Amino acid sequence: MAVYTEVSDEEVAAFVAQYDLGAVLSCKGIAEGVENSNYLIVTERGPYILTLYEKRVDPADLPFFLGLMEHLAAKGVECPVPVHGRDGAALRLLCGRPAVIVTFLSGLWPRRVQPEHCGPLGTALARLHLAGADFPLRRRNALSVDGWRPLFAASRDRADEVKPGLAAVLEEELSWLEAGWPRDLPTGIIHADLFPDNVFFRDGRLSGLIDFYFACEDILAYDVAICLNAWCFEPDGAFNVTKARLLLSGYVKERPLSPAEMAALPLLARGSAMRFLLTRLYDWLNCPPGAMVKRKDPLEYLHKLRFHQQVRGIGEYGLASAR
Amino acid sequence: MAVYTEVSDEEVAAFVAQYDLGAVLSCKGIAEGVENSNYLIVTERGPYILTLYEKRVDPADLPFFLGLMEHLAAKGVECPVPVHGRDGAALRLLCGRPAVIVTFLSGLWPRRVQPEHCGPLGTALARLHLAGADFPLRRRNALSVDGWRPLFAASRDRADEVKPGLAAVLEEELSWLEAGWPRDLPTGIIHADLFPDNVFFRDGRLSGLIDFYFACEDILAYDVAICLNAWCFEPDGAFNVTKARLLLSGYVKERPLSPAEMAALPLLARGSAMRFLLTRLYDWLNCPPGAMVKRKDPLEYLHKLRFHQQVRGIGEYGLASAR
Repeated sequence: MAVYTEVSDEEVAAFVAQYDLGAVLSCKGIAEGVENSNYLIVTERGPYILTLYEKRVDPADLPFFLGLMEHLAAKGVECPVPVHGRDGAALRLLCGRPAVIVTFLSGLWPRRVQPEHCGPLGTALARLHLAGADFPLRRRNALSVDGWRPLFAASRDRADEVKPGLAAVLEEELSWLEAGWPRDLPTGIIHADLFPDNVFFRDGRLSGLIDFYFACEDILAYDVAICLNAWCFEPDGAFNVTKARLLLSGYVKERPLSPAEMAALPLLARGSAMRFLLTRLYDWLNCPPGAMVKRKDPLEYLHKLRFHQQVRGIGEYGLASAR
Repeated sequence: MAVYTEVSDEEVAAFVAQYDLGAVLSCKGIAEGVENSNYLIVTERGPYILTLYEKRVDPADLPFFLGLMEHLAAKGVECPVPVHGRDGAALRLLCGRPAVIVTFLSGLWPRRVQPEHCGPLGTALARLHLAGADFPLRRRNALSVDGWRPLFAASRDRADEVKPGLAAVLEEELSWLEAGWPRDLPTGIIHADLFPDNVFFRDGRLSGLIDFYFACEDILAYDVAICLNAWCFEPDGAFNVTKARLLLSGYVKERPLSPAEMAALPLLARGSAMRFLLTRLYDWLNCPPGAMVKRKDPLEYLHKLRFHQQVRGIGEYGLASAR
């Protein structure tokens, strides 16, 4: 939960005056998201989201993110799109930070994931992958396998503060992942952060996807693996194979997985668990006291990692293997 | 900034289904306020505020607060009003907490107070006092002069951690205030927390008042003194007599201050400074690390207290004295 930059009433009024949105009737900081400052603004034209990009977002990436949202929306993916000002620009400065207004997406994200959420999620993810196929911009994934060792190095010496022996577990797993990471699977635009709080539902139907600020080019099936971890474990740590089956079935209905992708899924799931374990570990060890962000437990992802280490094939994720 | 209770999508949908508001299209936690959890919900009928009352609010006080909002609104004071469900009830339980939906008030609160804000503020405060005159419910002010000594006792031993000598300063001031606190000034319903973030403006006009959860019965001029402290000091600590003059002039236009009220204003301003100093000091010393609330500096109010200690009469607040 976070609003890092306090925007004054005068500043927001002057900012919105650059758009054909009428006057600002209300502006409230949203207590969600951990990377950027988000305000829900209500103008005479209705509700919109005002986002100020904070330090974790590289301004050089913004044309990629904003262009991607417009590209995906044009292809029928329900997602916010940047609103352009009267000067044609979508991206401008506010309080010294890059800022945009994006359209408001109705729906609520599921606080308790139900099996019924997982099929539509898989379908939406596959459609995103298909819709992104001809997006012309590129952005490498700084948080993929090549980025994990430097990230680990930044936490290694203190990892055992979180759990004795953790550094050794990570060291071994990292070497294994680096050695075996697939280099020939289909790649494309992935969301890379499609957690439940980034997926809206309304009346039991998926109404849209948000937060494309980790989107990048990477292995498409890795995005599926991220969702397996984010959606298919119960709060008590149990893996819900029904949810996984629905997620994967929803996905392959739109974009079939090749035998190679299926075979790689357990490894990709371990990689995804490693990625979130490492970033959470880093944040856990470096979160300043009094920070306004709830720290997420890195050990949740150690548990998920251990689960996938035992998986022998995609059948354990509920999907019949290709053979 | 705070959302203490996470309300699930299912819970909010079931809650809103008890009202004639249509389906919930969106529900976002608001990163404002420090006492309760607030969500901006958009239903098919438009935007509303959903408030869950957290531990600092005594449920027994809720009929007073909700009744007051309805009473004031009926008298023409722009403020949120509780929405009643189909069963007629406004107050019900959500996630184990008392919760209400109130109407949405448009406008933005001034992050940088300008002199132009202060006249309308004074006028609105006076109108609130007049409108509250025939409100039948009562609530004593637990944070008035009688409440300060126990509050001080809870922080005294550690007060000097914040500033050496602070405990002695507070002890002396507290005795002085207790000895001289007026017992015969006009009383009535006061807001008791009318800081800039509780006052909305739109198109240069005051559009409404919010957050009545400190409202109580107390000396009316004490409410004026709270506003003097909250609105008329610059960020660098300077007292802006122009703002004070506009605030007081706006007030007396609607509700003239008696000579006794005018004479008591410096003392009431010292009392108001003491009240916020003590609560901030307590929170400062007792704020758990990692709490999601920005701690407010108690010494800001020590500075204000020292200013009022030097004031010899209402003329120094910019208003000609009655004589």
